[in-house]
Amino acid sequence: MSAVSAALKSRVRRPALYNKVMKATDTLKFFENGQYIGWSGFTGVGYPKVIPTVLADHVEANDLAGKMKFNLFVGASTGAETEDRWARLDMIDRRYPHQVGKNIKKGINEGRIRFADKHLSEFPQDLTYGYYTKDKPNGPNLDVVVVEATAITEDGGIVPGASVGATPELIQMADKIIIEVNTRIPSFEGLHDINSSQLPPHRKPYLIMAVEDRIGSTSIPVDTDKIVAIVESDRPDNTGPNQPADETSKAIANHLIEFLSHEVDHGRLPKSLLPLQSGIGNIANAVIGGLANGPFEDVTVFTEVLQDTFLEFFDSGCLSFASATSVRFSPHGFEHFYKNWENYKDKLLLRSQQVSNNPEVIRRLGVIAMNTPVEFDIYGQANSTMVCGSAMLNGLGGSNDFLRNAKLSIMHTPSARPSKTDPTGISCIVPMASHVDQTEHDLDVYVTEQGLADLRGLCPRERAEVISEYFLLIMMESQFFSFLLMFSDLPCAVDKCVHPDYKDQLKDYFDYASRKCLAAGMGHEPQMLDKVFKMHTNLMENGTMKLKSW
Amino acid sequence: MSAVSAALKSRVRRPALYNKVMKATDTLKFFENGQYIGWSGFTGVGYPKVIPTVLADHVEANDLAGKMKFNLFVGASTGAETEDRWARLDMIDRRYPHQVGKNIKKGINEGRIRFADKHLSEFPQDLTYGYYTKDKPNGPNLDVVVVEATAITEDGGIVPGASVGATPELIQMADKIIIEVNTRIPSFEGLHDINSSQLPPHRKPYLIMAVEDRIGSTSIPVDTDKIVAIVESDRPDNTGPNQPADETSKAIANHLIEFLSHEVDHGRLPKSLLPLQSGIGNIANAVIGGLANGPFEDVTVFTEVLQDTFLEFFDSGCLSFASATSVRFSPHGFEHFYKNWENYKDKLLLRSQQVSNNPEVIRRLGVIAMNTPVEFDIYGQANSTMVCGSAMLNGLGGSNDFLRNAKLSIMHTPSARPSKTDPTGISCIVPMASHVDQTEHDLDVYVTEQGLADLRGLCPRERAEVISEYFLLIMMESQFFSFLLMFSDLPCAVDKCVHPDYKDQLKDYFDYASRKCLAAGMGHEPQMLDKVFKMHTNLMENGTMKLKSW
Repeated sequence: MSAVSAALKSRVRRPALYNKVMKATDTLKFFENGQYIGWSGFTGVGYPKVIPTVLADHVEANDLAGKMKFNLFVGASTGAETEDRWARLDMIDRRYPHQVGKNIKKGINEGRIRFADKHLSEFPQDLTYGYYTKDKPNGPNLDVVVVEATAITEDGGIVPGASVGATPELIQMADKIIIEVNTRIPSFEGLHDINSSQLPPHRKPYLIMAVEDRIGSTSIPVDTDKIVAIVESDRPDNTGPNQPADETSKAIANHLIEFLSHEVDHGRLPKSLLPLQSGIGNIANAVIGGLANGPFEDVTVFTEVLQDTFLEFFDSGCLSFASATSVRFSPHGFEHFYKNWENYKDKLLLRSQQVSNNPEVIRRLGVIAMNTPVEFDIYGQANSTMVCGSAMLNGLGGSNDFLRNAKLSIMHTPSARPSKTDPTGISCIVPMASHVDQTEHDLDVYVTEQGLADLRGLCPRERAEVISEYFLLIMMESQFFSFLLMFSDLPCAVDKCVHPDYKDQLKDYFDYASRKCLAAGMGHEPQMLDKVFKMHTNLMENGTMKLKSW
Repeated sequence: MSAVSAALKSRVRRPALYNKVMKATDTLKFFENGQYIGWSGFTGVGYPKVIPTVLADHVEANDLAGKMKFNLFVGASTGAETEDRWARLDMIDRRYPHQVGKNIKKGINEGRIRFADKHLSEFPQDLTYGYYTKDKPNGPNLDVVVVEATAITEDGGIVPGASVGATPELIQMADKIIIEVNTRIPSFEGLHDINSSQLPPHRKPYLIMAVEDRIGSTSIPVDTDKIVAIVESDRPDNTGPNQPADETSKAIANHLIEFLSHEVDHGRLPKSLLPLQSGIGNIANAVIGGLANGPFEDVTVFTEVLQDTFLEFFDSGCLSFASATSVRFSPHGFEHFYKNWENYKDKLLLRSQQVSNNPEVIRRLGVIAMNTPVEFDIYGQANSTMVCGSAMLNGLGGSNDFLRNAKLSIMHTPSARPSKTDPTGISCIVPMASHVDQTEHDLDVYVTEQGLADLRGLCPRERAEVISEYFLLIMMESQFFSFLLMFSDLPCAVDKCVHPDYKDQLKDYFDYASRKCLAAGMGHEPQMLDKVFKMHTNLMENGTMKLKSW
C-alpha cells in the first residue's frame, strides 16, 4: 500500500479500495511472459499510460526484448508511447482487433506479431464467447486487465475517460484488474451509458430508438475482489492534431452534401437527415466541417468516434445530439471541450463499442454511414485494410459494422494517390479490390473529388459504367443503352469517380473484359483473372498503376 | 366479374371482394412492357403460378418475345414454369435479388438480364426505401404485384402459403394487387407471423427473444382498394425431390456434429445447442439428417428455409421449434406435412424474410449458421455466388445475413468437385476467392469431408496452416512454431480441409507467397497477385485446377 493523494481520494469513492493503491513499479509482479492481457482504450484515448510504460521500461532495462511477450487485447488503438513502443521492444505476440503505429504495423507485416482484425462490434462479443482464449492453458479469462478510470464509484464501478470501447467485456473476462485513476483529466462521470454483455440464449434487445436513448449505467460494474492494484496517473491522452481538410476532401464533401440534399428533395431522407456515422481522417473532417455550415438542422450522430470537427458542428447549433464510443480530440480540442463541458454534457453519450457499432441499432436508426477505403473496384467491392492484398494498414475497424447495416452506405476517397515516383501513381478505383472488406452487397454510393456514383439498384455492369462514366457500345446491341437513357434523374456531373489519368485505362479493361466474358456466357460481372491485378503488380514493379497496355 | 366457385368462397372471407374475381386471361389488361412488377414466393414455393403462365402464353402466342419485358422483384426464387420460362421468352429486363433456373442464369451471364443480388434481409428494406424504383418515371411504387394466398380474411388480409418472403413489403409498395387464391393446397392460416416495414426514424425493435416468439399477425394487411383482381389457382408448388445425402456430405456432417459436441463439452454452447440455420443442398440435408439421430435434444431452428430433413428432425423428437420464411418440401414431403399438420402446426412459424434473416435477431439468439460456398480461400474469404469471378450462379441469398451475425459461422463444402475432364478438377479451397461474399472477418469454421478447420482467434497465416495442415518451416525461425504446439486442444484429425490432390500445390503457394511477402515486409496475408488466380485460369484453359508449377 502506498500513500493516497488528496487528488486520488477525490476520485475514489470507495475507501476500502485505498489499501490497493500502489506505485506503478510495484505492479510488475502481476505480469509474466505469455500472458493474455487487456487494456482499456479506443482510437488513442482512454488507454492506460503508466503501467504499460513501466513494463516497457522494465523490459528495456533488463534486456528482456523478445523474452517478455503478451497476447494483447484492446478495443481499438491506443497511444504510440504504449503499444507502438511495446511493438518496438518485441513485447507483443498477438494483437486483436485493431492497431495504429509504425512499429506495430512493421511487426505484423514482417510476421512477428500475430494480428487479426474483426468487426469492432463483434470483437468484445467473441471475447466473452471465449473464442480468443479457447487455447489458453489456464482457463478462458484474461490474466490481467489494465483500465484507465477518471473515477471509481461507491460500489467500485469504474467511470472511464474519453472512451468506453471494449472495457466492459475486458473487465467481465478478467482474472485480475489493475486500475489507473487519471487525476489530471476531469472526471467524465455522467457521460457514459454502459452495458455488460449477456450470452445467448439469454440476450435482450438494445432498446435504443433514438440516438439519445439511455439503456445502461454511468459506470462499469466490477467484482472488486478482482482489483489487485490501483495506481494514480497524471498523463494526458497522447493525441496529435486533427488532419485538416484539403481541396480534394472539400470537393468530396461538397458532392456528398449535394447528394444528401437531393435525397431529402426526393423524400428518401427526412429534412434533418438520419443519424450520421463518419470515419476518421481529413475527408471525414471536411464532411462534418461542411455540415457545420448547414443546410441541415437538428442533425444527430450515431458513430464510433468524435473528432474536433464535431465540436464545430455542435457549436454551429446544427448538431443536436451525438452517440459514440470515444471522443478523440486534439489537445486543443480537449481544452475547448473541458472548458465548455456544460454545453456538451447533455448532448453526448459514450457507449461500449458493442453498442455504438451494433448492427441492430444501426439498422433500426437508419444510419447514414461514410468511410474511406484503401481502394474500391468498378463493381462495388471495397478494400479497407490491405495494401496490394498482403500488407496490413490498421485493420477493419467499425467500417462494416456501419456500412453493412446503414440505410445509406457511402465510401469516399481521393480518386488517386501519389506513389513514390508519380503524383497520381495509385488509382483508388481498380478492376478488382486486392482484398475485400466490404462487398458489392453492402455499398450504395462512391464519392471521389471527381464526382459521386450512385450504385443503388444497379447491376454490376451498370455500376462499372456509372463509376467510370462510360456507356459500353457493345451493350447498345442488346437494348441496354436505351435503358440507361432513362436515368435522367442522375445529373451527369455526379456520375464519375475515376481520375482522368486512369479513365481510358479502366474503360479499356471493362470493354475488354465485357467482350470476352459476355461472349463466353460468363459476363454477369466481367473480370479477366489473368489481368485483374495488373495495375497492382505494375505499381509494385514500376511505381505506378499506369499501364502501357492490358 | 367471374363465377365464384364454392372452393374460392370457402377461402375468401370478405364477400365484397367477390366482384373482383376474374379469369386469369382477363388480367392481361393490367400488364404492359417496361412495368415494375412483384411476385410473392421464396425458394420455389408460394409464388403465383397462373398469371405468370397466362402472360407467358400471351407473349408466345403473339410473338412478343423481347417486346414485353418486365422489371421483376421477388423475395427469392420461384418455379421453373414461371420465371425460367419468362427468361426463355426474353420477358425479364431486370431481376432482383435471387434466382434459380437454367435460362435465367444464361440471360444474366450473357448480359440480357440485369441482375443484382442483395442480402435477402435487406432486399425488402431497400425496396421500401425506394432504392429499386428511384429512376422509375411514374413514382416509386411497383406497378403490379401478384401474390399467392391460401385464404383472405374478413378485413382483406392475405394469408400466404408455404412462404412469406418479401410479400409484406411488395404489397406495401404496390400500386395494383392481383391475388391468386390457391384452393388446391390447404390454408396455412395460423402458421405465419407477419410484420410490415416501418421506415427510420420510426422503426421499432424486433422483440424476438426465443425462436417461438410471435411479434406480428397471421395475415398480411392490405389496402383492399388496391386489389384489382382475384383469380383462383389449383396448381401445386412445383418442387422437385430433395438432394439426397452422399458419402461426402455424410462425412462433413459427422465432422460438424463432432465439433458441436466438442463446443458443448467446453462450455461454449448449451447442451441443446443454440438455434440452427442451415442452407439448401445435400450437405445441409446430411447435417440436419444427422442431427435427427441425436445427440442433441430440445434443439431449435431459426433459419430461412426448411427442407424435408427437418420433418425427420421434428419426427425424431429432437427438434422442438422452427422459425423460417419458407417450407420448401418435396411433393412427398408436402404430403407428409399436410397429413400430420396437427403435429407440426404449433412448432413452426413462417415470418417475412426481413425477420427470418434479421441481423438483430440472429445476433441476439446466437444462431449457429451453416452454408455452402462455391469456394473458400486459405485465409478465410468465401465466394458464394460467382464462378471464376464472373459467372453468376444463383445469388448471395441469406448466407451472409446469417454468417455475419451468427455466434458460430460455419461453411461446408466438398474439398474438390469434378470438372468436365477431371473428377477432382476443381479445388474448393483456393489461394484467393475469385469473388468475395463472406470476408475473413465473418467466418469461424470451415468443413470439408477431409476435416474441420477452426479459424477462431487465428491470424491469417495461422488460418492457412490449419486449413492446409501445414506448419511453415520458415516460421520456426521467428518463434512461431512453438506457439502452434500450444494448440494441443485441437485434434490433428480435424485440422485439414484441402483435398489430397491439392495439398502440395496449396502448400507450395503459401510457402512461396510467405517467403516473398514477409521478406518485403508485406506479409500479414501473403498473396502473389500475379499468380493468385492461376488455378482458376488453368481451369478455364485446361479443364483442371491442377498446375504443373506456380
